[in-house]
Amino acid sequence: MSEIPRPIIFNDECLLVLDQRKLPHEEVYLKVHDLEDTFNIIKEMVVRGAPLIGFSALYGMALWAKTTDELNLEGCKKACSYLMSARPTAVNLGYELKRILLTLEQQTHILNDKNEASKWFVTQADEALLKLEEDNKLMARLAEDRLERLYPEVKTYRLMTLCNTGHLACGPLGTALGVISYLHQKVRVQEVLAFETRPYLQGARLTAYELEKQNIPYRLLVEGAMASVMESEKPHAIFVGADRISENGDTANKVGTATLSIVAKHFNIPFFVVAPSSSFDLLCQSGKSIEIEQRPEVEVLEIHGQRIAPQMAKAINPSFDITISTHIQSIFCEKGEISPVNKENLVDVISSERGENV
Amino acid sequence: MSEIPRPIIFNDECLLVLDQRKLPHEEVYLKVHDLEDTFNIIKEMVVRGAPLIGFSALYGMALWAKTTDELNLEGCKKACSYLMSARPTAVNLGYELKRILLTLEQQTHILNDKNEASKWFVTQADEALLKLEEDNKLMARLAEDRLERLYPEVKTYRLMTLCNTGHLACGPLGTALGVISYLHQKVRVQEVLAFETRPYLQGARLTAYELEKQNIPYRLLVEGAMASVMESEKPHAIFVGADRISENGDTANKVGTATLSIVAKHFNIPFFVVAPSSSFDLLCQSGKSIEIEQRPEVEVLEIHGQRIAPQMAKAINPSFDITISTHIQSIFCEKGEISPVNKENLVDVISSERGENV
Repeated sequence: MSEIPRPIIFNDECLLVLDQRKLPHEEVYLKVHDLEDTFNIIKEMVVRGAPLIGFSALYGMALWAKTTDELNLEGCKKACSYLMSARPTAVNLGYELKRILLTLEQQTHILNDKNEASKWFVTQADEALLKLEEDNKLMARLAEDRLERLYPEVKTYRLMTLCNTGHLACGPLGTALGVISYLHQKVRVQEVLAFETRPYLQGARLTAYELEKQNIPYRLLVEGAMASVMESEKPHAIFVGADRISENGDTANKVGTATLSIVAKHFNIPFFVVAPSSSFDLLCQSGKSIEIEQRPEVEVLEIHGQRIAPQMAKAINPSFDITISTHIQSIFCEKGEISPVNKENLVDVISSERGENV
Repeated sequence: MSEIPRPIIFNDECLLVLDQRKLPHEEVYLKVHDLEDTFNIIKEMVVRGAPLIGFSALYGMALWAKTTDELNLEGCKKACSYLMSARPTAVNLGYELKRILLTLEQQTHILNDKNEASKWFVTQADEALLKLEEDNKLMARLAEDRLERLYPEVKTYRLMTLCNTGHLACGPLGTALGVISYLHQKVRVQEVLAFETRPYLQGARLTAYELEKQNIPYRLLVEGAMASVMESEKPHAIFVGADRISENGDTANKVGTATLSIVAKHFNIPFFVVAPSSSFDLLCQSGKSIEIEQRPEVEVLEIHGQRIAPQMAKAINPSFDITISTHIQSIFCEKGEISPVNKENLVDVISSERGENV
């Protein structure tokens, strides 16, 4: 849909993976030939974004099927476990691999022939990608509806977002950034205010790159400027993604999100989460039971390998935070718009068959 | 009081200025010989922090007196105007220079002799430095009193701060960081949680450097992690400085401060401002009338000269923000503790003769 290079491309020979560590300055593809290569590009964050990691793993399994000496259920389980260990906390990686293992356990004949097995894995990945693209569009339409109801007089919106939740994180359109891309195609985006998203700078490096490729007007800002810029620029709404949503609507997402939600409430700016239903964890009662991953201190103490703090400095670097449900106006997922303060509505929508409540 | 190198040292030959741009990695002094050198070290941010800029300018005038061919009131006014233009928004620069001009207009004989005039300027600077040191200690004692009343059972505090407000900004002890240094001398600091303070990284570079020199335990964190870390680490209090305080107590300070105050209110963590009475502007009715300086976009788009965002990226970079008075528990200045919600109390304390209300 735009000039953004596809983050992963599968051909019969190999998987081509856009090296996201080099963006926005260089667009370089790495060639992935086998299971070990797949493990490495996930581990080293050549690919990132929970959905994209899941899809990459499925294509990686297609490469495994072609090259393995152990094409059977046992070998397949070993290969999946190996890939899952590359990023143990990435939800979608485990989700996609467990899903295909479940099928293979009942249809072991798929693993009879190298080429057939490889094709089957490719089909699984292609279909998952296509489904997410369709779902992302549904979420974007729901968000558009909501903005129209909120601001019946407004033609173009000033929108705020944090981290990267677009093509580079999802493969297709994206979640929160997908809403923005979708609205831009309808000429309804006035400007995007994008947080740089320290420490990993996903906003300054990746979201800025995606916005620029689509000619969407934007300005970057530091996280500290939340209050100042909300007051001066008065964004119409804030859209963020989600890594896990608990039964009561509390949402784990990139660090900075909870801070943003608190400041948004102070300035009375609508705060929305955009996430597929697979991001919901109904077994998790509230945000209190979601474990927060602590990332290496060096991400705070260095920028692009350049030391900014004193040599002996220490840092505290939580990778995620928990936005409480009462700070979230709505969650848009492919099954419908959910008001998290209404807990029954959340469970109903997520437990429903797809499309029922849309 | 510690191993922190003095940011400015005057000897009869020249002014030695610690190059703060090179901290924390290198401790390099530049030699300042005349008025033009003084202008340059202020303009290029070799020295920073409003009080320190003011003191540097006074020493610069001592160098001017020694080297000028125009040692008279007219020449002196020209030299002061030149220095003020180096950082037109720095309050203390103008304050110190206007103060000495006022004296010189009534006592022009000071300018009769090069050496005598130079000595006079040095005395003015020395005295201003000494007075600030004494005032900083008064503020720190008031803050200590308040913490003791808040937490009668607690022996050591976990404190949070933003930007750099210590020796490197003030010359002596400092304001918010001065409170922390003072409490550390009394073995009452458990840990400091210091924000890196994007975009200029005063926290990661300068505050971390000062804390390390004093062996004060600390961890750095990104501004986005405010909510997450307040919840997990439960700091006892937050101390920040001020660039200007209006009559109603609204406080302009480094960008990130207002964001911090909103999140602190949400988590019910006491939020304190530490600032000398010269930071109050009683002619300014509220924060709404304080102009917010927009700094160059490149500060957000690059880090240490290394581009992080795409080449065409734009940024919005407000250097300050306004913390509303209802988010401030107390302001500690050398004249007393002020509760900003009680407006009459603020005006009384600030308008009083020094020490009266302490």
